[in-house]
Amino acid sequence: MTKEAEVNTQSTTSDPDSGAPEAAVKDRSARYWIGFDLGGTKMQCTLFDESLKQIGSRRRRTKTELGVEGGLDRIAATISKVLDDADVLPSQLAGIGIGCPGPVEWSKGVVRVAVNLGWKNVAVGKYLEGKFNCSVTVLNDVDAGVYGEYAAGAAKGARTTVGIFPGTGIGGGCVYDGQILRGKHLTCMEIGHTKINGSPRPGGTGMAGTLETEASRLAVAGELAKLAYRGEAPNLFKTAGTDLGAIRSKTIAESIAAGDKNVERVVEDACEMIGYAVANTVLMICPDVIVLGGGLVEAMPDRFVKAISKYAKKNVFECYRDEFEVRAAKLGDDAGTVGAAAWAQKVRQQSS
Amino acid sequence: MTKEAEVNTQSTTSDPDSGAPEAAVKDRSARYWIGFDLGGTKMQCTLFDESLKQIGSRRRRTKTELGVEGGLDRIAATISKVLDDADVLPSQLAGIGIGCPGPVEWSKGVVRVAVNLGWKNVAVGKYLEGKFNCSVTVLNDVDAGVYGEYAAGAAKGARTTVGIFPGTGIGGGCVYDGQILRGKHLTCMEIGHTKINGSPRPGGTGMAGTLETEASRLAVAGELAKLAYRGEAPNLFKTAGTDLGAIRSKTIAESIAAGDKNVERVVEDACEMIGYAVANTVLMICPDVIVLGGGLVEAMPDRFVKAISKYAKKNVFECYRDEFEVRAAKLGDDAGTVGAAAWAQKVRQQSS
Amino acid sequence: MTKEAEVNTQSTTSDPDSGAPEAAVKDRSARYWIGFDLGGTKMQCTLFDESLKQIGSRRRRTKTELGVEGGLDRIAATISKVLDDADVLPSQLAGIGIGCPGPVEWSKGVVRVAVNLGWKNVAVGKYLEGKFNCSVTVLNDVDAGVYGEYAAGAAKGARTTVGIFPGTGIGGGCVYDGQILRGKHLTCMEIGHTKINGSPRPGGTGMAGTLETEASRLAVAGELAKLAYRGEAPNLFKTAGTDLGAIRSKTIAESIAAGDKNVERVVEDACEMIGYAVANTVLMICPDVIVLGGGLVEAMPDRFVKAISKYAKKNVFECYRDEFEVRAAKLGDDAGTVGAAAWAQKVRQQSS
Amino acid sequence: MTKEAEVNTQSTTSDPDSGAPEAAVKDRSARYWIGFDLGGTKMQCTLFDESLKQIGSRRRRTKTELGVEGGLDRIAATISKVLDDADVLPSQLAGIGIGCPGPVEWSKGVVRVAVNLGWKNVAVGKYLEGKFNCSVTVLNDVDAGVYGEYAAGAAKGARTTVGIFPGTGIGGGCVYDGQILRGKHLTCMEIGHTKINGSPRPGGTGMAGTLETEASRLAVAGELAKLAYRGEAPNLFKTAGTDLGAIRSKTIAESIAAGDKNVERVVEDACEMIGYAVANTVLMICPDVIVLGGGLVEAMPDRFVKAISKYAKKNVFECYRDEFEVRAAKLGDDAGTVGAAAWAQKVRQQSS
Repeated sequence: MTKEAEVNTQSTTSDPDSGAPEAAVKDRSARYWIGFDLGGTKMQCTLFDESLKQIGSRRRRTKTELGVEGGLDRIAATISKVLDDADVLPSQLAGIGIGCPGPVEWSKGVVRVAVNLGWKNVAVGKYLEGKFNCSVTVLNDVDAGVYGEYAAGAAKGARTTVGIFPGTGIGGGCVYDGQILRGKHLTCMEIGHTKINGSPRPGGTGMAGTLETEASRLAVAGELAKLAYRGEAPNLFKTAGTDLGAIRSKTIAESIAAGDKNVERVVEDACEMIGYAVANTVLMICPDVIVLGGGLVEAMPDRFVKAISKYAKKNVFECYRDEFEVRAAKLGDDAGTVGAAAWAQKVRQQSS
Repeated sequence: MTKEAEVNTQSTTSDPDSGAPEAAVKDRSARYWIGFDLGGTKMQCTLFDESLKQIGSRRRRTKTELGVEGGLDRIAATISKVLDDADVLPSQLAGIGIGCPGPVEWSKGVVRVAVNLGWKNVAVGKYLEGKFNCSVTVLNDVDAGVYGEYAAGAAKGARTTVGIFPGTGIGGGCVYDGQILRGKHLTCMEIGHTKINGSPRPGGTGMAGTLETEASRLAVAGELAKLAYRGEAPNLFKTAGTDLGAIRSKTIAESIAAGDKNVERVVEDACEMIGYAVANTVLMICPDVIVLGGGLVEAMPDRFVKAISKYAKKNVFECYRDEFEVRAAKLGDDAGTVGAAAWAQKVRQQSS
Repeated sequence: MTKEAEVNTQSTTSDPDSGAPEAAVKDRSARYWIGFDLGGTKMQCTLFDESLKQIGSRRRRTKTELGVEGGLDRIAATISKVLDDADVLPSQLAGIGIGCPGPVEWSKGVVRVAVNLGWKNVAVGKYLEGKFNCSVTVLNDVDAGVYGEYAAGAAKGARTTVGIFPGTGIGGGCVYDGQILRGKHLTCMEIGHTKINGSPRPGGTGMAGTLETEASRLAVAGELAKLAYRGEAPNLFKTAGTDLGAIRSKTIAESIAAGDKNVERVVEDACEMIGYAVANTVLMICPDVIVLGGGLVEAMPDRFVKAISKYAKKNVFECYRDEFEVRAAKLGDDAGTVGAAAWAQKVRQQSS
Repeated sequence: MTKEAEVNTQSTTSDPDSGAPEAAVKDRSARYWIGFDLGGTKMQCTLFDESLKQIGSRRRRTKTELGVEGGLDRIAATISKVLDDADVLPSQLAGIGIGCPGPVEWSKGVVRVAVNLGWKNVAVGKYLEGKFNCSVTVLNDVDAGVYGEYAAGAAKGARTTVGIFPGTGIGGGCVYDGQILRGKHLTCMEIGHTKINGSPRPGGTGMAGTLETEASRLAVAGELAKLAYRGEAPNLFKTAGTDLGAIRSKTIAESIAAGDKNVERVVEDACEMIGYAVANTVLMICPDVIVLGGGLVEAMPDRFVKAISKYAKKNVFECYRDEFEVRAAKLGDDAGTVGAAAWAQKVRQQSS
């Protein structure tokens, strides 16, 4: 039973065969970058040239049932396919950037805990370096997405940006003064797990009343299923019944458009909670751009940007109100691969 | 009616007269730094040599009743006195670092809002540059203190440190990877104003249930005054009665030592709240060292370090638990001047 | 799409035909009482003799789509059928007691607001008096159920009892010193709508953090659906998926028995909240017996009684701890009809 | 150090000597009632005739340092003095009603726990019956006050009334359908200890977020002392400084009148909390009159009645909104003695 939308596993690159004739005159001195986005249900692998222009891409199911070794093999196989698709040799790879779920030990390229993959202490970096003989940068998947928005999307030009992505949980990432914000060894900005109110509902760390327990798409869907059950969200009920799995972002947006006032209120409440988290973030880190992303935001970008901005600005000191802007993400599903490749390139530049 | 302890306004430098004979052979090529800590009730000005060794210092009442111009004059006069005390010429000043309360527009050297001074948009940097003809670095006072602890105190050697100082409010500061963490224009890490629970008590920004409303020394004293009033804190009542102004940090520590169980519980509750804020900070920024300071912590350092560490570690993911350490500040009242001077020196080095 | 279990619409009386031969010698001087339980999805009508022995009963769908008039007709028809089944003449009716959902104006026999029926200000009493020419007592359905438990079930012998029935909402009723507790005109003990914590979730009156928003079966099911969605309640997920409508009381009990630790925790949390409501009730009214009922309690009576009792006793003054006992209801679905008939009889006795 | 206002210990009766000449023709068949109000700091004893007209009264310090026996003796001596003052013989006493703090075992005339007296399980009834050879009715002091308001004050004519008296704690009492609402053995309506929000501050039973921890005069004073300390309540600070003991009801009212906006807000917040408790009470018991009393309410009756009424009506179902009225108490300090005597008389009538 798949919880997320069926993913398109087709290649988005142009037909590899049609590219064959060009291969003859291929410039083998050209260098390329892989940006890889490893998620719990799907993985996306994109090939970029030195200017970060997208050359080719593939998206596939993650198949967590394969376990750690099988999963690593599948990652490597996907990279190989994308290289093949574009007729690029592994030796032409300048580097790989791979965003992985959960806290990552960035200095060693190790995924510490990825609950949705079932991984613990997996040395992704070392494995891929062995396979492709190039430098590999392992980062957190949300950091990758936020770096993507910073490098080429909604946060371009920002000094500092924090990204907040409500989904099953709420992912967060931060680019501080051009660098991904992180700890001595681990990635951070786990904003979804920060405490923001007095609700007794426990989050992932056991701490109660976190941003995630109060305002994730799943938290919203939970409230909406109850409304549907009680007959207080008739349009939503017509489309989705009372099944959490059927209450998708689009369904929610449509039921509001169709006049479900209570659904609108629940979404507004979630925005208030995210607004508190943004206020906390501004008070602590003062990013000049906050990027909102994920399916729920994509389905109603104006509503989320406007409401969250309102609540955030209301709850910071006056002098901070004009210091930040809330924006909707621009790159959609590509943010992760773009960011991973761009960050890998930046790390390479900084270390040389 | 003074709310804070009577401050010692005497110079802590050696007798200026006794230094006079040495002046004849004084090396006028030596360069010096001023570290200035401007608070709502007192100001402290310390002279350092190039190696940041303390040469002389003065502490005086701030006298907020003097207004902005009078206040600036008093700052300048204090600097001049400290220079005179040590027989240092203004032309020997390499730079001044001054920590000021409230959000500071660091890029322009402007104090934006300092409620306890009654200041708004005061160009401290420009004023002092005019007076002393040297570079002036204006920073937030708590940032200065935390940078002091980072440069020469409890957080020496840390990659990243966040300082939390519970007092009338709760001050915060952060040194991230060697730099004071800040926004595009303004200083930040206003951790005291971040929301951490569902209490309806509004804090400084209007947002309710903030770290400051729940766990400042003043919040603690408010709870204790009620205990004293109801006869539930007999030792505290004997010493301090029911007057908030008389419930000092030392009094609180003594009443716990004398057996006031309810006082102990209130302090424990405050530690739990600060623990949540530390957990939020670790999840977001992952500092390797958290420094706790201020009078209340100084009166019971072990109790605070132990309890806050316990609550913080309980509420983050397991993999973060060994990534940070909670420590008590080491420099006491000198942290601000040391940090201001050290940061001014660092800014100079980085810009050259 | 039916939200509640398919109800058995068969008569539970003995076959009316088989009783026919006895009719000849029927004692027409015998007097009877009707106890009627009108719910949002089903109605139950039971005939009692003077000693409140059950003679016959029918249960039918309520069919709210019939509207007010159609609904009243269906009630009358059901009573007539039950009388026919038992070969009792309308003239033999001593009285009718009918429990109706929502606040009832007991003095006038008017249902004020019954959201699940779509009724507003319906004069049930007058209508039935006209039809059956006997005295009619209209009461709140949960009051009826609690009076049933007081008269013949778990609260027999109590001076005062409060009943709490978690379902889609949380119903409450109170028998104080032998009388149903009520206001000057309206029924009350709407305990599900009382505020007990700081949750921002609004309840039926708009007030947030009520017993119902935090601890109803629906609130529990909402939390459980999220657990199932995240893979944190594998047994529940296997049986019920992520559909609120499929997460029944029995399913919940079974998933706990099968080892779903997180499901157990959610139920425990609900018990804690109900425990607070019981503590509030004891502090205010000091009932000697608290009766817990409804499907969720019936599926796990020992767990609910034990946990709620623990939390309630912990949160009252010591001297109240031995003054009350928490018990599981005994009469199940019959409590409403038994209580309605018994209360009608008592009202008659008191007024004569 | 006295926490409450210095009490007037003078007799309020007319000079006993001046009454002497009338004694000669005294009607010794006349019967009298004593109403006694026993508080933690003062006791008041009033003599009433059969029509409950006040004959004489005395108010004295309670002197808790006398212990149980000394305390009981002081009560008896005070009654004797009031009798002597009015030249009434003990044999003319029809009965004594005495309101005592804390839960009272009304059936046995025993004070169970009176924290402010330092009493536990004191058989006040038996002691006074022995001394005065008449029937003695022991009740809770707040119940007495509410019964007084019901019998002769603001709640006259009500079917059911609940009284709420914010002071150091928050007292509550209820007269339901003409009878003091109570448990099988103990008095109740301890509304101050019921949970109403998510505040972590523990109340008297250990339960957190109770009406008392959030909205008592002491809770209000605690918030105000902090405002005064921070310079946010200048008028209050001028009069009372930062001492809880000096922040009296009158001071609070005056500082609002003088323009302290923050003081007004804190009082409004307390009214909101009391409004929730009233809403809870209406939903549970549906009293037609809510009586507010105590010094804080007396200092600003219109403000409290209006604000509490607003919040209470907002948070109940629409049909309850016109079913209750919030009123200020009328009898002031006399409510307790009037109520104790009136209740004693009623108990006598009912048992005969």
